[in-house]
Amino acid sequence: MRAEELATPALVVEAGALGHNLRVMSEALRGPRLRPHVKAHKCTGLASRQAANGHLGFTCATPREVEGMSAAGLGEDLLLANEVLDPARLHRLARLDARVTVAVDSDATVAAAARAGIEEVLIDVNIGLPRCGCRPEEAGPLSEKARAAGLSVRGVMGYEGHCVGLPDRELRAEMTASAMELLESAHRDVGGDIVSAGATGNYDLNRGATEIQAGSYALMDTAYGKLALPFQQALFVLATIISVSASGYAVADCGLKALGMDHGPPELVGGHDVYLVSDEHLTIGTVSPLQVGDRVRVIPAHVDPTVAYHERMHVVQDGEVLDAWPVDLRGW
Amino acid sequence: MRAEELATPALVVEAGALGHNLRVMSEALRGPRLRPHVKAHKCTGLASRQAANGHLGFTCATPREVEGMSAAGLGEDLLLANEVLDPARLHRLARLDARVTVAVDSDATVAAAARAGIEEVLIDVNIGLPRCGCRPEEAGPLSEKARAAGLSVRGVMGYEGHCVGLPDRELRAEMTASAMELLESAHRDVGGDIVSAGATGNYDLNRGATEIQAGSYALMDTAYGKLALPFQQALFVLATIISVSASGYAVADCGLKALGMDHGPPELVGGHDVYLVSDEHLTIGTVSPLQVGDRVRVIPAHVDPTVAYHERMHVVQDGEVLDAWPVDLRGW
Repeated sequence: MRAEELATPALVVEAGALGHNLRVMSEALRGPRLRPHVKAHKCTGLASRQAANGHLGFTCATPREVEGMSAAGLGEDLLLANEVLDPARLHRLARLDARVTVAVDSDATVAAAARAGIEEVLIDVNIGLPRCGCRPEEAGPLSEKARAAGLSVRGVMGYEGHCVGLPDRELRAEMTASAMELLESAHRDVGGDIVSAGATGNYDLNRGATEIQAGSYALMDTAYGKLALPFQQALFVLATIISVSASGYAVADCGLKALGMDHGPPELVGGHDVYLVSDEHLTIGTVSPLQVGDRVRVIPAHVDPTVAYHERMHVVQDGEVLDAWPVDLRGW
Repeated sequence: MRAEELATPALVVEAGALGHNLRVMSEALRGPRLRPHVKAHKCTGLASRQAANGHLGFTCATPREVEGMSAAGLGEDLLLANEVLDPARLHRLARLDARVTVAVDSDATVAAAARAGIEEVLIDVNIGLPRCGCRPEEAGPLSEKARAAGLSVRGVMGYEGHCVGLPDRELRAEMTASAMELLESAHRDVGGDIVSAGATGNYDLNRGATEIQAGSYALMDTAYGKLALPFQQALFVLATIISVSASGYAVADCGLKALGMDHGPPELVGGHDVYLVSDEHLTIGTVSPLQVGDRVRVIPAHVDPTVAYHERMHVVQDGEVLDAWPVDLRGW
């Protein structure tokens, strides 16, 4: 099938750009130095490609992602980099035929993990982003409580999300280093082999982590596209022009239910301006004439919440659809 | 099951508020005066309730919504209020055991509908929102082309989306009236029984339409909540506090993949401030003490793209889960 025959809106992944991104990252961070984050693509088809590149440990954000990765035979070393209290889900994770490590940052999350039969944890440390994680000085005592509860503590994790998108590379590096000092200090108190942190934006700047949790690099978006990283835009939403106005705008069949909008509106290949995003429509100012029936490629501002709206992504090369990968890790 | 036992994040619909909203709307717009728009809830379970209130015609935004409504036995009179060119989908719609009317606004969409065997259309007229729809003066000639192509033209539709959210009720009424003058003028040229337009924001102000396409009124969101409409907030995202910081914030397990963000961040029942929305986290400033494990209710800023992220909505009364309705009209 040709890409232009796909029913729209459709997620399209350019095989060449994806292959480039996977290769560049794997050359920079070999094997276990990268723990790819599946939340960015929610797709075991893509995760299999990352595993084939030598990355056998993965980062997950939800129990569903962990369960789906395990079911796909990708369960060699799954880190749930998030706090979970739900006993039923934790029980299911503990019973998977997979190595599962969960993040804990409080007495309550330690107790929930231990009660559910989870065997391994990381101490999640807050290193500047106002989100989960204990204070660095609490990490040591919490690790003792975890060990006392029978849990094996593999080390620490943190997420310097306030640094990873900074446009200035030097500032990004400095801020990353400051954040990582906090995580390394916590690690000295906690012990273990793992210091897990980082993202696509600072994958080559974070020197303190033993493993980097990058995810967006595989598909990319306009936010990370602004950082002069060596990754190419691989993901597009293919849309059809369904209406053209004499007033100089056109309307594509791709809207708020096909695009994560928290980082703002998407951009278009070809430079057309985005005027308006409605539930199922994208109104664009046209810089070149567009006809009803034409196809346009839309570049999401934020890859993660965009992919989460779609049932599958189509892998395309030279206009030919090579494969359709289910976005099979959606939900919780 | 009690609502507090639901795995989170979870869409929760308060049965009392939903019943109130359905009743108030049905008293204002009886039977065919309302053509509920299913794009707001994407749920045949909820649509069945609307049908039980006497509204047997529905508005859809995607072919999938039309097919799903037909499969659920709700196909008495389905309007696809959107332009579709895809021959395969149009063929499927034409073969449904349902009355299907599609919007057309150009020679290309008329030709596509006729070729696929679609029998009935509305002429979609642009009445001020920069989106689909022909110019009012083009509507008459387009209806002649449609009839010449063998299509039955049931009338006109438009969407005054630039008016429906205006905070000032008088201005909303005036702008609606101006927009509807354009649609009524087109209707005089086109003929047919139907003048379809309107939304929750001006359901009682739009005097020119023969039927109102309101959808959000059933569940509501913070955007429409600001307009002093007689509808209650019925939809919430239930989330669990998974982390509490000594710095005065807490983190809930509900983020960008559970919330449409185009209208901005959500609000919280209880008045907690929203600091940060991440893929799977909501960082909130707490106005009252929150503990790890507490539940919070999050009110989406925009109902449509919020619901589209979820697999089901749970109908709740007095804290008891009465039903779980699949969000079965997702996708395209």
